[in-house]
Amino acid sequence: MTNRIAVAQAHPQIGDVPVNVATIRRLSIDAHAAGARMVVFPELATTGYAFESRDELADALSFGDGVAEIADLSAEIGIIIVTGYAQIRDGIALNKAGLFENGELRGDYVKTHLWDTEKELFTAGTSLPPVVDTTVGRVALAICYDLEFPELMRHYAVSGADIVAAPTNWPAGFEAPTHYGPFNGEMLRAMAGASTNRMYIAIACRTGIERGVDWVDNSCVIDPDGYPITALFDGEGLAMAEVDTAISRNKNISERNNVLGDRRGDLYVTDER
Amino acid sequence: MTNRIAVAQAHPQIGDVPVNVATIRRLSIDAHAAGARMVVFPELATTGYAFESRDELADALSFGDGVAEIADLSAEIGIIIVTGYAQIRDGIALNKAGLFENGELRGDYVKTHLWDTEKELFTAGTSLPPVVDTTVGRVALAICYDLEFPELMRHYAVSGADIVAAPTNWPAGFEAPTHYGPFNGEMLRAMAGASTNRMYIAIACRTGIERGVDWVDNSCVIDPDGYPITALFDGEGLAMAEVDTAISRNKNISERNNVLGDRRGDLYVTDER
Repeated sequence: MTNRIAVAQAHPQIGDVPVNVATIRRLSIDAHAAGARMVVFPELATTGYAFESRDELADALSFGDGVAEIADLSAEIGIIIVTGYAQIRDGIALNKAGLFENGELRGDYVKTHLWDTEKELFTAGTSLPPVVDTTVGRVALAICYDLEFPELMRHYAVSGADIVAAPTNWPAGFEAPTHYGPFNGEMLRAMAGASTNRMYIAIACRTGIERGVDWVDNSCVIDPDGYPITALFDGEGLAMAEVDTAISRNKNISERNNVLGDRRGDLYVTDER
Repeated sequence: MTNRIAVAQAHPQIGDVPVNVATIRRLSIDAHAAGARMVVFPELATTGYAFESRDELADALSFGDGVAEIADLSAEIGIIIVTGYAQIRDGIALNKAGLFENGELRGDYVKTHLWDTEKELFTAGTSLPPVVDTTVGRVALAICYDLEFPELMRHYAVSGADIVAAPTNWPAGFEAPTHYGPFNGEMLRAMAGASTNRMYIAIACRTGIERGVDWVDNSCVIDPDGYPITALFDGEGLAMAEVDTAISRNKNISERNNVLGDRRGDLYVTDER
């Protein structure tokens, strides 16, 4: 089953949920018009990223977190929307990814690996949600730094994911030396996660400078061979890719090798000693 | 502690152990003369790779497997030698990596993830040897396809490895599309293994065509940031790199992030379900 999906490189405005939801609406309409059946938006696409305090984030969310509007958009436009968003629950701030299909929040995930100052602002998730069976295949949710944990990628592969949809904000400053091509280290690690598990990984990154923080952009869809089949290196826009679940469900890489079957789970000891 | 190490891209002659041990001797002397304190050789560097049967391999080993000579070389030259080699034990063929220091076989490993037709010829290992504390740092052993299992790289990182020394024979045919630079997919996955664990990975590949099989060459040393700091893209020779255990023992990647400490071992379920 082949379907077109999109990653949307958006430029969220810090603290302005209505403007950011309008951007999600506009780019979702464009993605749908271009034939995409799913579109992925960046991490914290509804609120922006560089908040100085939990109170400031709470203020931004005081007139709504955008979730109901995005759910409605998924039904109105007829496209699966995956987006990063923020919520505050019982005084705790959460960095989340939601999958919206036909007006419903069908997958909801709280980021489990927090990056740097996020640890001051957000509380990490305590569970991994099930993979969501959608019209484009089985979709798992991850957010940015999560992609750098091979254990999580394996968890999702073993859970049957065809696509890891990953709202992301890759900060500038970790780019590869230029002779490695225009790929930041995080992208190289995601490429390995895709190929060692034979999954697609759809990464939507933000663009634009926010409070002095710059980003590498580099939204992309990586295929099960581990190479980006589409990428958007700079500025706002959409990148499209065809995903074929017949490819992601075939874990064989030679006549006698299978990326999951060849594991030697009896041998690895990976807890702290 | 900074030390120079080398990876030796050799061209083993199939079935000719004495010639191959002479090559190991010559390149080890060259590596030592260039200041290296450890040199890594390819997978099955003593025998060559493309055997048609276990009997043919047994014939090649009938006058000795080269192990005693290589152990002696490590003492005579005064360099740690890591090499791939073959042995037959109780009728079972083994694809091994040995670490020789001061005349002793200090680390010995049987490949645990066999590639394609190796499964017809060899029996996989059933254990992972301890990391070896050497004068260049703590060295773990892996062979070729082993590098593509993030679980194994984690195992070695948690076991305290500074360097994964990896005798390798990467076959041609899995190269990246040219716009990704001269890196085959296996190298990209090794780069992710190095950076997600903050270890060095020293990969020695073979060169030369053997029975119609061509190889990508691409011997390299990858640093804990995940990029090759030395590489040899074609032909026989040595590539040198400085390895600093102060770098490989620092697992922090931001003020608040640590590649091992940030793992959420309570969450991942990676066995088959």
